[in-house]
Amino acid sequence: MIEMDTRKAFTFIEPGPVTLVTANDGSGDSLMVISWTMAVDFEKNCHIALSSGPWNSTFKVMMETGECVISVPPADMVESIVHMGVESSREIDKFAKYNLTRQRSETVSAPLIQECIASLECRVEKYYKEYGLVVLRCDRLWYSPEREFAPMLHANGDGTFRADDPRVYNYLDVMRKWVPRGCERYL
Amino acid sequence: MIEMDTRKAFTFIEPGPVTLVTANDGSGDSLMVISWTMAVDFEKNCHIALSSGPWNSTFKVMMETGECVISVPPADMVESIVHMGVESSREIDKFAKYNLTRQRSETVSAPLIQECIASLECRVEKYYKEYGLVVLRCDRLWYSPEREFAPMLHANGDGTFRADDPRVYNYLDVMRKWVPRGCERYL
Repeated sequence: MIEMDTRKAFTFIEPGPVTLVTANDGSGDSLMVISWTMAVDFEKNCHIALSSGPWNSTFKVMMETGECVISVPPADMVESIVHMGVESSREIDKFAKYNLTRQRSETVSAPLIQECIASLECRVEKYYKEYGLVVLRCDRLWYSPEREFAPMLHANGDGTFRADDPRVYNYLDVMRKWVPRGCERYL
Repeated sequence: MIEMDTRKAFTFIEPGPVTLVTANDGSGDSLMVISWTMAVDFEKNCHIALSSGPWNSTFKVMMETGECVISVPPADMVESIVHMGVESSREIDKFAKYNLTRQRSETVSAPLIQECIASLECRVEKYYKEYGLVVLRCDRLWYSPEREFAPMLHANGDGTFRADDPRVYNYLDVMRKWVPRGCERYL
């Protein structure tokens, strides 16, 4: 993967894709599948909210270490994603079982995932326990040049998923005043 | 629109679509376009997090009245959605300008929007001002039978948008243990 300006980080989260969240406390890479994320701002080090809870072993590792990598997989990984979502990292090595290729990250212990569209190195900044809401700050952004514009996967929450169509509607001319400088990816 | 069990409400938000958020303080229906939402739980009265701030006039009305309607528009409304997103409800009546059809809601002042896939009547439960994070509780859910399975719109955040493909991947057999009872929509 190749580094990209973190000002573009929220553009990988705002479409609402299924994500793979990886954390590592020294005992191996733990991975969870998370659909409940959203961008919270578009500053240079953008913030992302994520919702889950301590019943999830990867969530616990993320909270204990205060860091994680959020990766956005392409929709054609749906079969692996669904199975990773129902298995536990305490029992299996998901990187090995699903042939995920690690790449060393710069600021956190968990690796980037080369098969993904993008990987965001993140640090936990806040935890609102009442609703299981975590706010993460993105410190480094990486992307795969071959996959940058691949369809993303979106979960319906009832066991079904949809893919998006990477052909885009371009409305930058209408929205230019509201689009933060330096975040353009599709233009 | 027809009422639907609120246990299905999160299935309209989890895919990550662009939403229209409407609030009313007695001086007319104020409408904002919001992409930064996520489901927070899948209880019967599901909770949804939303991120915005007081620079947005509709956000202010939502916070003052403590309520709103979140509507999920179909992707083919993209042209209207983009323009509604850059205009202010203080200056124009977006319902009139974009031919939105109101339907009376049950528990809040703002109306449902008949052209949308679904409309969720919501109440503000919590505001974490530091990150502009609002947690809403969904008390009533309505959907349009003709539009329930229409493609949704997803924002990239840089002035471009993608539509999703409503054909779904069905993995309920793998995920049944993790899918909350009564939330099935696509099956």
